[in-house]
Amino acid sequence: MSQWEERRTAILLASIRDRKPLIHHITNLVTMNDSANITLAIGASPIMAHALEEVEEMVNLAAALVLNIGTPDSGRIESMLRAGKRANERGIPIVLDPVGAGATSFRTRTALRLLSELRISVVRGNAAEMEALIGIASETYGVESLSVADDFGAIARRVARELDCVAALTGGSDFVTDGSRMARVDNGHPLLASITGSGCMSTSLVAAFLTVEADPWYAATNALIVMGLAGELAALKANGPGTFRTLLFDAVAMLNEEAIVQCQKVNIR
Amino acid sequence: MSQWEERRTAILLASIRDRKPLIHHITNLVTMNDSANITLAIGASPIMAHALEEVEEMVNLAAALVLNIGTPDSGRIESMLRAGKRANERGIPIVLDPVGAGATSFRTRTALRLLSELRISVVRGNAAEMEALIGIASETYGVESLSVADDFGAIARRVARELDCVAALTGGSDFVTDGSRMARVDNGHPLLASITGSGCMSTSLVAAFLTVEADPWYAATNALIVMGLAGELAALKANGPGTFRTLLFDAVAMLNEEAIVQCQKVNIR
Amino acid sequence: MSQWEERRTAILLASIRDRKPLIHHITNLVTMNDSANITLAIGASPIMAHALEEVEEMVNLAAALVLNIGTPDSGRIESMLRAGKRANERGIPIVLDPVGAGATSFRTRTALRLLSELRISVVRGNAAEMEALIGIASETYGVESLSVADDFGAIARRVARELDCVAALTGGSDFVTDGSRMARVDNGHPLLASITGSGCMSTSLVAAFLTVEADPWYAATNALIVMGLAGELAALKANGPGTFRTLLFDAVAMLNEEAIVQCQKVNIR
Repeated sequence: MSQWEERRTAILLASIRDRKPLIHHITNLVTMNDSANITLAIGASPIMAHALEEVEEMVNLAAALVLNIGTPDSGRIESMLRAGKRANERGIPIVLDPVGAGATSFRTRTALRLLSELRISVVRGNAAEMEALIGIASETYGVESLSVADDFGAIARRVARELDCVAALTGGSDFVTDGSRMARVDNGHPLLASITGSGCMSTSLVAAFLTVEADPWYAATNALIVMGLAGELAALKANGPGTFRTLLFDAVAMLNEEAIVQCQKVNIR
Repeated sequence: MSQWEERRTAILLASIRDRKPLIHHITNLVTMNDSANITLAIGASPIMAHALEEVEEMVNLAAALVLNIGTPDSGRIESMLRAGKRANERGIPIVLDPVGAGATSFRTRTALRLLSELRISVVRGNAAEMEALIGIASETYGVESLSVADDFGAIARRVARELDCVAALTGGSDFVTDGSRMARVDNGHPLLASITGSGCMSTSLVAAFLTVEADPWYAATNALIVMGLAGELAALKANGPGTFRTLLFDAVAMLNEEAIVQCQKVNIR
Repeated sequence: MSQWEERRTAILLASIRDRKPLIHHITNLVTMNDSANITLAIGASPIMAHALEEVEEMVNLAAALVLNIGTPDSGRIESMLRAGKRANERGIPIVLDPVGAGATSFRTRTALRLLSELRISVVRGNAAEMEALIGIASETYGVESLSVADDFGAIARRVARELDCVAALTGGSDFVTDGSRMARVDNGHPLLASITGSGCMSTSLVAAFLTVEADPWYAATNALIVMGLAGELAALKANGPGTFRTLLFDAVAMLNEEAIVQCQKVNIR
């Protein structure tokens, strides 16, 4: 990837809409509905299934697998491992969302176990979650005196290198890196932080792009551009978090090539 | 039922709004909130309860029972069987939503087990799910060369006859049959397929109509007319799946007799 | 509290928005997403976690704990007890939402067990649920001949005295009492009863106010004022339950001091 090509985001999106790939989610109880609806909005097809009796058969049908530990328990983790192993055998890409890593040792351990036992294509998380994955203690959360933007890029790079995956760290700006290439995405809107599920929905979009793009760094960067642009469009007509959330699904579904090409703000290093 | 009477849909709806019947759901984790809100929108009262300790006592209070296998696991299936047996003892009608039957053998088996061990009044599913219930392999999914409309009617009729229930097959057109009578409902809108939960919500509406109408074929047909009409009304002002979903609840709640009588598109054979 | 001071509601709300307190929820599967979003809308930070492996560690991080028995099962109750005991040890306030108490003996028993084994700051429920907690049989539900308003105040007072907590009984009017002081809140709108989760969301707001106000009676009363005012504002532009629900989140997020001071309807006895 010697240079970024704006038009390619739109081409990948068109490909998702054309193929309607099945995205198998084993995800949290809070934002399942949002994840399903954003998957439909991007043009893919969601299926949520967690029973040990069916996760392997279901993942066989899928084009990508989302593992999200937002409301973890032992049964669900076992299902994630089983589905993940089958996905690895079949070459089906996996995205991990380590929700709440760092908040409890159970979540940090669970995220690291999934990263250790499975080949994960992309980890999508916020700064605190990413820090937890590389052992940075939570005391550093919210330290405002650091040069945050540079720092978050460095954290993402450490995650990518130490855990051998693409790291997609989202926040005011998003940082996506495979350890060498780094994309900073400046699309987005503060209202994305005013609703639950923004992160989980970004993760579902990463999975959708992984089904049409073999380079996970490129896929994840494009997914975050789309989410950021949709947030900007939704914010234009929103009067608060309720209307914003409703309009976000419209925006993802209605994104057109012109907006994608002209409005994306991505910086490649 | 020698002829269809348009005004009766409105009469049944008024009766639901008057009685506020309790609809006990044992349903999936993805669309529970949607099912609860559509049940309220139609004028009924939802309760979700799955613990073995209470499902029998809860179903005793209910006027109808929804069993939806969207996120199945062994505990929940046991609860469905227990609640279903009590419902059968008490003459409380049951609607089954075989979400994902055909996608995994676990779901197909689960749906068939519920149909075998319980007396189900209505099965509400899409074409692929209905085909799975009568052993048509998934290779046939999406075959566009068939005369789809006729074919779906035939599939619904086979489901009804082989499984001894009313089959309500929903899609571009809906087909409702008890094996002899056949209703085709042409109300609806493509945006219904752009959100998760449309099918699950239709199932909840079928349950609501079963509480005021003893003929399950007639009840299911009226429920699908209401869902289709609401979809059409919501689409008038929607700008995408997010606003459509929001407006769908308004539309169900605000449906008036005039719209129901004048706009229903039902064909009885 | 010798007299009510309208301006203080706005001061407490500003304090929540400033501190962004973490509210740990162990709650039901139907309205988790609503509870998370309303917690964000008021300016606090929601976390949902139920695994035995992490509930104690999570509650250590929290400023308040919500226990909501809307979809109870034995595993979740065990988690509630464990989290609640830790909260009690740490002086973290607990709000209990006894959803469906009185509907099944399992729910009534569960609510009473939590009230017996934990120190609960506030119980927030509707009239039927509150009656169940003090052993009034469900036969009395819906008795219209009573002077309902007075009666509900009396029920709330009995709950507060017999169970040694603040009782917040919500309905057409809300009654909040610690057994001696009584607040009646007349803010609200009938559309709040047209959606699922209004009660659960009120409970989350009570938790948010408990993090900035040591007097649970005062905290709960202010939370119900905010919920009622938000309902009134949302209803101004709503066309039914779908748009109302969307606008409710906007209204909570956008509530300003002027509306709070001028429009609150609270009566202290």
